[in-house]
Amino acid sequence: MKKSLGAKTFLYSSPVLLVGSYDASGKPNAMTAAWAGICCGQPPCMYVSLRQATHSYGSIMERKAYTISVPSVDLLAETDYLGTASGRDADKFAATGLTPVRSDLVDAPYVAECPLVLECRLVHAIDLGLHTMFVGEVLDVKADEGVLDEQGYLSLERVRAFLYAAPERSYYAAGEFLGKAHVAGKSFPARG
Amino acid sequence: MKKSLGAKTFLYSSPVLLVGSYDASGKPNAMTAAWAGICCGQPPCMYVSLRQATHSYGSIMERKAYTISVPSVDLLAETDYLGTASGRDADKFAATGLTPVRSDLVDAPYVAECPLVLECRLVHAIDLGLHTMFVGEVLDVKADEGVLDEQGYLSLERVRAFLYAAPERSYYAAGEFLGKAHVAGKSFPARG
Repeated sequence: MKKSLGAKTFLYSSPVLLVGSYDASGKPNAMTAAWAGICCGQPPCMYVSLRQATHSYGSIMERKAYTISVPSVDLLAETDYLGTASGRDADKFAATGLTPVRSDLVDAPYVAECPLVLECRLVHAIDLGLHTMFVGEVLDVKADEGVLDEQGYLSLERVRAFLYAAPERSYYAAGEFLGKAHVAGKSFPARG
Repeated sequence: MKKSLGAKTFLYSSPVLLVGSYDASGKPNAMTAAWAGICCGQPPCMYVSLRQATHSYGSIMERKAYTISVPSVDLLAETDYLGTASGRDADKFAATGLTPVRSDLVDAPYVAECPLVLECRLVHAIDLGLHTMFVGEVLDVKADEGVLDEQGYLSLERVRAFLYAAPERSYYAAGEFLGKAHVAGKSFPARG
């Protein structure tokens, strides 16, 4: 028997990301978002959901672009700060000492210190209520050489990305490797 | 200097979820999805992105409803299987021994063995290309009593949700607690 907890956004394993944009004055800004994810394979698309009240909202609507920078656990304090202060009041890059880098593909900056970066061209802005979902086509993914393994593939162990648990409003590390997809389920019949 | 990896859906910490629906014949079905997440706070909304080719696609379009069941790591093999077989060919509940439970709020079944369940009414179906994004309003969240802590709050440690790392096509456990949001960043000035 399950207990009702009400109509809530209770989901685990949200990614922790820094959304980069330029505001109307050209100032680079970054805000933390966890309501984000992959939403299409071809064309490759990501989304981030932001409140209209954020400084980033107007910037992304104006520039039709944003970046996603994936922080490692070393940047936990900076990441948390970027989710609390507003670019309207603060120069958050200056406050944290992080370095904005102008994307050469979209009109937005990314965070140099993040090992993994996605450059997105805005394709949809879907107003859902308190939040607007910004769907962006990924034009390129860039990674530090140090987070690629010997075969040149991205390694979670090296990226050290962490996650957000919405029900607890807490950050958690990624844990142990459990298995490759499409392997663990082979014990069941393909046709039931 | 970052290395270009091309236009890819490379993001970490995707949730691993089972999407429940009834097909045209009334057969309960569940498929695994990792391209899913929170997309609005008020009304509370989730999305899952599915390919049109999936059996679940037609079911959700027809019934205007789906459930999200969050598996614990104990259900890793079942979860992986539900992401490989199609409900068009197989009775995936029968094949895995999992139990479909009819939601009393939406026209869709959830998975009894999953400790956390969200019942969603379809509000948008957004065709992005290979995938369609199904945005659903969460009408209720239900959890097993055993995954609530002493104060009645959800506990990731008890739910034992796991995550999908798209770049590696692999499952990972959730790891250690790193900190509460809006605490770790307090060392930086509110105004830069």
